[in-house]
Amino acid sequence: MAKINENYLKLPGAYLFSEVGKRAAKFQKENPDAKIIRLGIGDVTRPLPQVCIDAMKRAADEMGKVETFRGYGPEQGYSFLRDKIADFNYKKRGLNVSADEIFISDGSKCDCGNIQEIFSLDCKIALGDPVYPVYNDSNVMAGRTGALKADGHFDGIVYLPCTAENNFSPEPPAEKVDMVYLCSPNNPTGTVLDKPILEKWVAYAKENDAVILYDAAYAAYITEENIPRSIYEIDGARDVAIEFRSFSKTAGFTGTRCGYIVIPDGLTGTTANGDRVPLKNLWARRHTTKFNGTSYITQRGAEAIYSDEGQAQVKELISYYLENARIIRESLSAAGLKTYGGINAPYIWLKTPDDIPSSWDFFDKLLREKHIIGTPGAGFGPCGEGYLRLTSFNSRENTIEACERLKTFS
Amino acid sequence: MAKINENYLKLPGAYLFSEVGKRAAKFQKENPDAKIIRLGIGDVTRPLPQVCIDAMKRAADEMGKVETFRGYGPEQGYSFLRDKIADFNYKKRGLNVSADEIFISDGSKCDCGNIQEIFSLDCKIALGDPVYPVYNDSNVMAGRTGALKADGHFDGIVYLPCTAENNFSPEPPAEKVDMVYLCSPNNPTGTVLDKPILEKWVAYAKENDAVILYDAAYAAYITEENIPRSIYEIDGARDVAIEFRSFSKTAGFTGTRCGYIVIPDGLTGTTANGDRVPLKNLWARRHTTKFNGTSYITQRGAEAIYSDEGQAQVKELISYYLENARIIRESLSAAGLKTYGGINAPYIWLKTPDDIPSSWDFFDKLLREKHIIGTPGAGFGPCGEGYLRLTSFNSRENTIEACERLKTFS
Repeated sequence: MAKINENYLKLPGAYLFSEVGKRAAKFQKENPDAKIIRLGIGDVTRPLPQVCIDAMKRAADEMGKVETFRGYGPEQGYSFLRDKIADFNYKKRGLNVSADEIFISDGSKCDCGNIQEIFSLDCKIALGDPVYPVYNDSNVMAGRTGALKADGHFDGIVYLPCTAENNFSPEPPAEKVDMVYLCSPNNPTGTVLDKPILEKWVAYAKENDAVILYDAAYAAYITEENIPRSIYEIDGARDVAIEFRSFSKTAGFTGTRCGYIVIPDGLTGTTANGDRVPLKNLWARRHTTKFNGTSYITQRGAEAIYSDEGQAQVKELISYYLENARIIRESLSAAGLKTYGGINAPYIWLKTPDDIPSSWDFFDKLLREKHIIGTPGAGFGPCGEGYLRLTSFNSRENTIEACERLKTFS
Repeated sequence: MAKINENYLKLPGAYLFSEVGKRAAKFQKENPDAKIIRLGIGDVTRPLPQVCIDAMKRAADEMGKVETFRGYGPEQGYSFLRDKIADFNYKKRGLNVSADEIFISDGSKCDCGNIQEIFSLDCKIALGDPVYPVYNDSNVMAGRTGALKADGHFDGIVYLPCTAENNFSPEPPAEKVDMVYLCSPNNPTGTVLDKPILEKWVAYAKENDAVILYDAAYAAYITEENIPRSIYEIDGARDVAIEFRSFSKTAGFTGTRCGYIVIPDGLTGTTANGDRVPLKNLWARRHTTKFNGTSYITQRGAEAIYSDEGQAQVKELISYYLENARIIRESLSAAGLKTYGGINAPYIWLKTPDDIPSSWDFFDKLLREKHIIGTPGAGFGPCGEGYLRLTSFNSRENTIEACERLKTFS
């Protein structure tokens, strides 16, 4: 009898974005003339940098000639890309990360979802609340949790509330955990973790022999000088942290698919009897057994951003979205609404008005009255209740129009 | 304490292809003038079909304009590709597979490695021996086996010997298993499963409520009319089988990355208390949580083979390799060596001469005396001992030269 992995059945059936889509479709059907502006899903809308397109077209042409054709690539990714990542994102910032500690993938979502496989099912995990659902769900599916509780949390996971009260910067818990997911700049709150809080986390990880899984997929949006772009800016982080990075939001690769993971040499986990095992070796085994490399063409596209021209084009792309974020933040403030994030991230985390405490009620009201779609904060976890996520991933025109509509909110 | 997944430590440290590479590199260093011909690794060498290149370049250009830019794609893959797969590979052959039963991925290796995640860790699996290592290793890593035994098998797996004696077509075992991996055309043996044996397997699966994981990545190489291209040519297979297909060997996509999986509606697994759960729903959950779609550009490239021109170019590509296979088969026969496969597959499974029973000894002899690299059969499992895999994935010139060298073998 082919028994299924019953851990999957612990996950609730209704997905956040499908519910959002359903409500939007219903409204549009009932109001066919309404011009809905979508500030909900975190997907980019601007074209790829031209350097990436040119590089991918050249690479495609290479694939058409027997002399330059490429079959299976090196399993960790091509060194032309890993070298440039190590150089631009780490060495030039004075950080000690070498190319052979970098594994190229088809995106950070996959890496974030897969990384837990190299750890024991006994490991206790800690997550922010609200949180990017992949950290939570991939651990539920693996069987590292109990059942879903009435409060929206899974039994066995340590949730770290991220709210205005703690400046969205959770302190390490009093209890001991083995793996902790941190995301900065944060999805969904758009806030960042500063150096003092990251130092506390690295100290906690050392003290508890824990591993930090640091998702820095939005690092390119950091504008404030004193905010770490990488966990490796913190002393000692190489001993306790894995870092996730992506080209998705940096260079518009959400539909092109490229990311990477950094696992420092010397970062280890333990066996039950206390032997230390390099995590890099385990990931290499996973990567070479259950993955077969990222498209050569895509890797050439990603490489292209590491040139003067490429850096300028990426900067322009990110500035565009950050300017949208500024417009949204300032307009909402002017309308008397309280916002967080949006300075070092493409997301704005909007507090619902006092008289509308439910994020779904506020979502419905915005849709009905302003024809604007956000994402209800409650969809990212119980502590997201009372908030709504807006994204800056839209055209300037739509962003300005949405803000015009919101001005007359109250 | 971040404990590791200790199942990884059950896997032997030395990998087949790294050992092959090491021995080849050593020989080349000691014999710098030797012209080594590599018939070892199963990777294509011919350029991509021009239709694929043209389509990918057009798609890259689309990514450069705001009107045609694509972010995250549909999670199951674009319908432009799924529709054509359903039409060309199934409907035109009279098979009942619809586009919404197809999930596009970044390659069959990933799908073959990941599929076991939706099943219970209690499931008993059966595998061929010799076998594509991913089926075995992904289950070891998940914890579905015991330790590696002295005979090269893992405790808890039912291995099905595939040898000349049973025509490389294993019968269903006497005992009950829950999941069985079948691969036809077979990697590494290059042989195929015919209709009568597949009918036995479907009957076995129905009787035992088992699931067949049918890897048809090499289906495009089948030349004989009576050999099934798809498990769904067998009556009742939709109730018991998942099928894996790939563009890697069909259209030279090993470095471009695209494959797909078919999970029929109505194919179910069971919970411990006997409830039936559609496997498609579980895979959809896995696919949307731990994967984020295949590159739009790649999907356009894959779609391009489903045109008259594309079909002609793919046919030419496959004919090229199959002609190489014919040359190798006939030359080896003329040299008095016994071969299998190579008629419906790009692989030739060569019996080592009677006086060299060890596949590694034979590998060394071929390397030393003929400067030809094969893959020792023992690397694919204990029953591969006494065989060597040669591939047809080389140029015509190199193939002919290798055969010239082999003529004077004995």
